[in-house]
Amino acid sequence: MLEAVERKIEQYVLDLNEPDIAKVVSKIPAGKRLRAKLMLEIAGNGLSVVKSAAIVEMIHAASLLHDDVIDDASTRRGVDSINAIFGNKSAIMVGDVLYSKAFYELIDIDRFVAKSISNAVVQLSIGERKDVYMGDSFNTDKAAYIEMIYQKTAALIEAASESAAILAGKPKDIYKTYGRNLGIAFQMIDDILDIVSDSKTLGKPALNDFKEGKTTLPYIYLYEVLNTEDKEKLKSLHKRALKLNEQEWILAKFKEYNIIEKAKQEAFELINEAIEIMQKAGEHGLEAIAIKMVDRSF
Amino acid sequence: MLEAVERKIEQYVLDLNEPDIAKVVSKIPAGKRLRAKLMLEIAGNGLSVVKSAAIVEMIHAASLLHDDVIDDASTRRGVDSINAIFGNKSAIMVGDVLYSKAFYELIDIDRFVAKSISNAVVQLSIGERKDVYMGDSFNTDKAAYIEMIYQKTAALIEAASESAAILAGKPKDIYKTYGRNLGIAFQMIDDILDIVSDSKTLGKPALNDFKEGKTTLPYIYLYEVLNTEDKEKLKSLHKRALKLNEQEWILAKFKEYNIIEKAKQEAFELINEAIEIMQKAGEHGLEAIAIKMVDRSF
Repeated sequence: MLEAVERKIEQYVLDLNEPDIAKVVSKIPAGKRLRAKLMLEIAGNGLSVVKSAAIVEMIHAASLLHDDVIDDASTRRGVDSINAIFGNKSAIMVGDVLYSKAFYELIDIDRFVAKSISNAVVQLSIGERKDVYMGDSFNTDKAAYIEMIYQKTAALIEAASESAAILAGKPKDIYKTYGRNLGIAFQMIDDILDIVSDSKTLGKPALNDFKEGKTTLPYIYLYEVLNTEDKEKLKSLHKRALKLNEQEWILAKFKEYNIIEKAKQEAFELINEAIEIMQKAGEHGLEAIAIKMVDRSF
Repeated sequence: MLEAVERKIEQYVLDLNEPDIAKVVSKIPAGKRLRAKLMLEIAGNGLSVVKSAAIVEMIHAASLLHDDVIDDASTRRGVDSINAIFGNKSAIMVGDVLYSKAFYELIDIDRFVAKSISNAVVQLSIGERKDVYMGDSFNTDKAAYIEMIYQKTAALIEAASESAAILAGKPKDIYKTYGRNLGIAFQMIDDILDIVSDSKTLGKPALNDFKEGKTTLPYIYLYEVLNTEDKEKLKSLHKRALKLNEQEWILAKFKEYNIIEKAKQEAFELINEAIEIMQKAGEHGLEAIAIKMVDRSF
């Protein structure tokens, strides 16, 4: 069913009548198309669902183009990022084209869908900015972290689920909760993977987020349990290129206090709630998508 | 009447509940608010007109934030640009927030207005990209230049006029033509001013556009009339830091062939057509705005 969404995205890009832009867009890896998958699962593959899913995926792609410029990223999904291939300016401009074309098409969709999705884009723009600025200092505020990842990542997944429910005439609130939980859990897991996944070059976790100043959930939990001296030590390592022994000290502390399990648990609870909601609603496809997310990379 | 538009923009920014973003936005110089002025002149100051004008001005501001990053500009309207004050990343992110908030509010306006304005944003994103890439080589194609400035500058002015006419229940086509003519002429005049205005530091025209690779209308006309040898010389100076004698050679050639007058004439014809249309329609306020544009800086 995703094939129809891919074709719709291609058509929207062809509409622009700009071969150079189409060429850049063709180099953006499609990724998992999680948002489109959820929408098709919730609402089937009618034309307005396919259009809405294509719009959401174009918005997601545009946001990643800009994020990679903001984060000075050189890779995305294991391949060279668009800013790395075509330069930052091209990534900004093609992102703007994708955003505006997506909004142009969104006008023709149901008004409540258009409000939901456009509101999510406001949230994700604010969230991406917060992500950058929160990295300036060591953040110990869990609520601020959750709000930021909600805005940056979950808002669009939530809106995608809600929009699909609206289009399908299903009760939108449970789908909205499902999407929000999945989105927040997805970002939490992503942040945990930065700590537990071995980097290809190092053969051990690179702790990139912390180096960039991002105090993700495990760091917030670790800070909470450390004694005063170790609290200061952790803070002193924030936003720095870590030496090998410093990296190992952090990893040892995570292990000592069982932090990674605690953070995983928090993500799993959100996913379990999402699974339960969909069990009750008899939405087994959505249950399966949520279960798959738990298995992701652990 | 513009005061109501300014207050609406402020309210939209306050809605975001992000004081840091509001602070950045407050540093964006308001400019002439040409688009809002046209809209109020066409459609009066009812709430939906004021909202639409605020949306168009937010879109315009967002596009300038991104343009200044793309063009490595350090000033805008005589003051430091947002990217110069807060950095490129901040300009990109705040631009995205303004764009998305504008689109979110646009959903609640008349559907035809929303289509017109969102289509203009697609055009201006494509136009900005063309402006950059056309600067890679010496462009002698007048039609390509006109299309690019139409997209980059005139499309949003055209959509603003058309949208106001729709909201006022006036015949939209003449207002659309008026806006398009004004927009194209506005950009042509801007491009001419780069050649005839003395730079503050040099005391003579800096020919910045040509240095950046932009072959604007006067250069296209000049190339058409030069002999083969001088054609090559002009091309050899393209996209380079010009020496004093090279700059003087270009200015002498412009004078010899009366090129600036010819380019001005082309802009004036567009404006005259716009004035005539509005004379016939009895729109004296719009006539006056067009007349003022001719007087601008010559």
